[in-house]
Amino acid sequence: MNRSMVRYLVSKLLIIEACLLIVPLLVAFIYQEPIKVIGSIIGTMVILCTIGGIGMLFKPKNLHIYTKDGMLIVALCWVLWSFFGGLPFVFAGQIPSVIDSFFEMSSGFTTTGATILPDVGVLSHSLLFWRSFAHLIGGMGVLVFALAIMSNSKNSNHELMRAEVPGPVFGKVVSKLKNTAQILYIIYLMMFVLLVVILVLCGMPLFDSLVISMGSAGTGGFAVYNDSIAHYHSSLIAYIVSIATLLFGVNFNLYFFILLGKVKTFFKDQELRTYFGIVALTTLLICFNIMHLYHSFDKSFEYAFFEVSTVITTTGFGITDTTVWPLFSQVLLIFLMLIGGSAGSTAGGLKVIRVLILSKIAKNQFLSTLYPNRVISLHINHEVLDKHTQHSVLKYLAVYTMTFLGLVLILSWDNENFLVVFSAAASTFNNIGPILGTTETFAIFGPFAKLAMSFAMIAGRLEIYPVLLLFLPKTWSN
Amino acid sequence: MNRSMVRYLVSKLLIIEACLLIVPLLVAFIYQEPIKVIGSIIGTMVILCTIGGIGMLFKPKNLHIYTKDGMLIVALCWVLWSFFGGLPFVFAGQIPSVIDSFFEMSSGFTTTGATILPDVGVLSHSLLFWRSFAHLIGGMGVLVFALAIMSNSKNSNHELMRAEVPGPVFGKVVSKLKNTAQILYIIYLMMFVLLVVILVLCGMPLFDSLVISMGSAGTGGFAVYNDSIAHYHSSLIAYIVSIATLLFGVNFNLYFFILLGKVKTFFKDQELRTYFGIVALTTLLICFNIMHLYHSFDKSFEYAFFEVSTVITTTGFGITDTTVWPLFSQVLLIFLMLIGGSAGSTAGGLKVIRVLILSKIAKNQFLSTLYPNRVISLHINHEVLDKHTQHSVLKYLAVYTMTFLGLVLILSWDNENFLVVFSAAASTFNNIGPILGTTETFAIFGPFAKLAMSFAMIAGRLEIYPVLLLFLPKTWSN
Repeated sequence: MNRSMVRYLVSKLLIIEACLLIVPLLVAFIYQEPIKVIGSIIGTMVILCTIGGIGMLFKPKNLHIYTKDGMLIVALCWVLWSFFGGLPFVFAGQIPSVIDSFFEMSSGFTTTGATILPDVGVLSHSLLFWRSFAHLIGGMGVLVFALAIMSNSKNSNHELMRAEVPGPVFGKVVSKLKNTAQILYIIYLMMFVLLVVILVLCGMPLFDSLVISMGSAGTGGFAVYNDSIAHYHSSLIAYIVSIATLLFGVNFNLYFFILLGKVKTFFKDQELRTYFGIVALTTLLICFNIMHLYHSFDKSFEYAFFEVSTVITTTGFGITDTTVWPLFSQVLLIFLMLIGGSAGSTAGGLKVIRVLILSKIAKNQFLSTLYPNRVISLHINHEVLDKHTQHSVLKYLAVYTMTFLGLVLILSWDNENFLVVFSAAASTFNNIGPILGTTETFAIFGPFAKLAMSFAMIAGRLEIYPVLLLFLPKTWSN
Repeated sequence: MNRSMVRYLVSKLLIIEACLLIVPLLVAFIYQEPIKVIGSIIGTMVILCTIGGIGMLFKPKNLHIYTKDGMLIVALCWVLWSFFGGLPFVFAGQIPSVIDSFFEMSSGFTTTGATILPDVGVLSHSLLFWRSFAHLIGGMGVLVFALAIMSNSKNSNHELMRAEVPGPVFGKVVSKLKNTAQILYIIYLMMFVLLVVILVLCGMPLFDSLVISMGSAGTGGFAVYNDSIAHYHSSLIAYIVSIATLLFGVNFNLYFFILLGKVKTFFKDQELRTYFGIVALTTLLICFNIMHLYHSFDKSFEYAFFEVSTVITTTGFGITDTTVWPLFSQVLLIFLMLIGGSAGSTAGGLKVIRVLILSKIAKNQFLSTLYPNRVISLHINHEVLDKHTQHSVLKYLAVYTMTFLGLVLILSWDNENFLVVFSAAASTFNNIGPILGTTETFAIFGPFAKLAMSFAMIAGRLEIYPVLLLFLPKTWSN
């Protein structure tokens, strides 16, 4: 391990976070917030710059970092950003507990959108904005972002990227990694700005449009009011947000194909088709299952489509009280939680491509049991998927299942409702946000469960291994 | 597919079931049961002999059967035995619904022990005995049983055995398959007789001892009274049954080592150690978690040990109302349900060896992410586990998870309590028996859910593929 390089880069990342805090500081000035709030933000910036500055005093001689170092940096970055990013809430007295503020900002940076606040009304505009701004930053991955503006180590980019980019297959659209990151980031920001404009045109206030768009772009889910999107009482806004989140759950490499004019390649992609297929099927199933509650196809369809989009993309905006829905619909939503969005998108979860590969593997396994002598290969987009990728997907399922069940066990210590426990685990580990089976927020859990879920959110976001690394004693010994 | 051979063997199996019905018929005579009950058993025997006799009229010329045929025969056998085996209950009017009686006997033959009877008191001695006798027969697998007394087709044994023997690794203790089956069966019956004797010595009536021993041997769980083992108000009996079920959840090949005097090999087996390790750990965890309910270590330990043994071995006897236990303990029980007993035992579930291999794979995957250039191999009992077995275990996990989630979805249509739905799915698919989260029986479910669970029990027992085969249109076309 190259310790001094890890120290140096992590310190640099802390200074970047200090710079990011300028944005909520501006919001605080615009809304002429009390000195306590402004002070809490500036105070945090001072702390970050001090620690970061000390850490950057000595430049490392050896600029080479290993896979393990890259993972460690990524994991540390998410943990530290969440910790320090939560300090303004503590200093301003809006979230008094450090564990709660850590949970809230982990939820922000991991684009989960789970909250411990029974009432978001306690937050000032600046800190409400900061929380959602974390979604925007977290969206494409803190490191893909950081990658685009910094380039220190020689071959670090590749290793950082590897830990960061979600999904098993990362298409090499552009050969140079830095360029790829920049292009994806530009597409991301353009879509974000477009959504802000559309929402403003629909009559939403600018502040709300920014917050909702950041929540959609990062597929995070933090909103402005306790009743989330339901607050606007507008089917138009509901549909726009549904479609927007769905689009942010698409593999961003595919958008690059559209930019290149290869629209056919876009629509022929098997993951995309599966993704939209799942959305269409579950929307219809839920729509008919909840029809008796809303007495109209229109409203049922709107709610079903909204919930399916917001859950499969792991966004987690709210539009209606789903606890009154039949268990069948709620179980469908839990399955969507586990599936998640497309690889290479801002969404979390197991990823559609993995689920697609797993179902093909299951089918092939069945066929090969029937016909032991037949050679059966697995195709994705008309190309044979090599055994190595197949096995790493299978292994990921094993690791994923075990981590998930471990989390369920920890949470069951804290709460007595199985649906609440199971969905809270699914919700945090897959970076979604809401809990099923209760109308309460994550405030109902105790400190230890909150800490466990904070790390689960980061583990879910970074596809588990980097966070496991943090808990390996070996990492911290020589 | 060799259709006439499938027809011939299945018909033969029906006649075997008719012969098995002689046992409950004897019980009916001993207890001088009404003519309606005796008639219902004889009537079923006549139906079985008629259909079986017609099917066996023409002997097939080609005695060769394929893997697919073997699987189909096994699956058909379980479905048909359960269907016809349920007829006496219908004819005698003790279970009026055919779906209910099919469920009850699937539960019997698959050694699940799930019941749709709110009150088992409605059953006469003979039919209560028949239901439990199915556990004994199902225990080592209908076909290992059938194998020991019939040998028709040339290479069929191997193919039938393959579909039947649970678990990914089947040790070749004795080279000839028929001999192996016979030896395993003798060990099994000896252990059964020993248990009957011990229970009678403890003061349990002979009839009860037989029923409880059949339930333990098959790791099934059908008992004599509604309150199962709790009825006897005896800690001694509770401990005996706990230990007996645990022993029936051990790989039977290992007992053969004991017979050969290789006691060390027995105790050094990694699956065995993991199995006992899990039992010890979860017993202690649950014991301390429920201590406040029973105010004594003794009682808590007894209940914890009993429930852990009965659940991990997928037996499912009852001793106390676990719905009042903390969710933490209930979630631990659900995990034990998913793990199940050892491969090559009468227990169901995913099997300890698979869970052991999966955790080793997960650990190796983590290590190989950290050290991409290091070659990491997986050892079981100091031997390298080849990649092929590793991958088939991973693939089985994928198939298992998908089938299980599909069952949860079907059941969620029928019931609104997530813990009930989730545990009913886990309970039937892993051949355990009880439901968590309710004190009711499976009678609370509708006919479609009951049918789905009947097939789930058989699928769980036969490790999924043979039952999938039944639903493949291709199987029935040319």
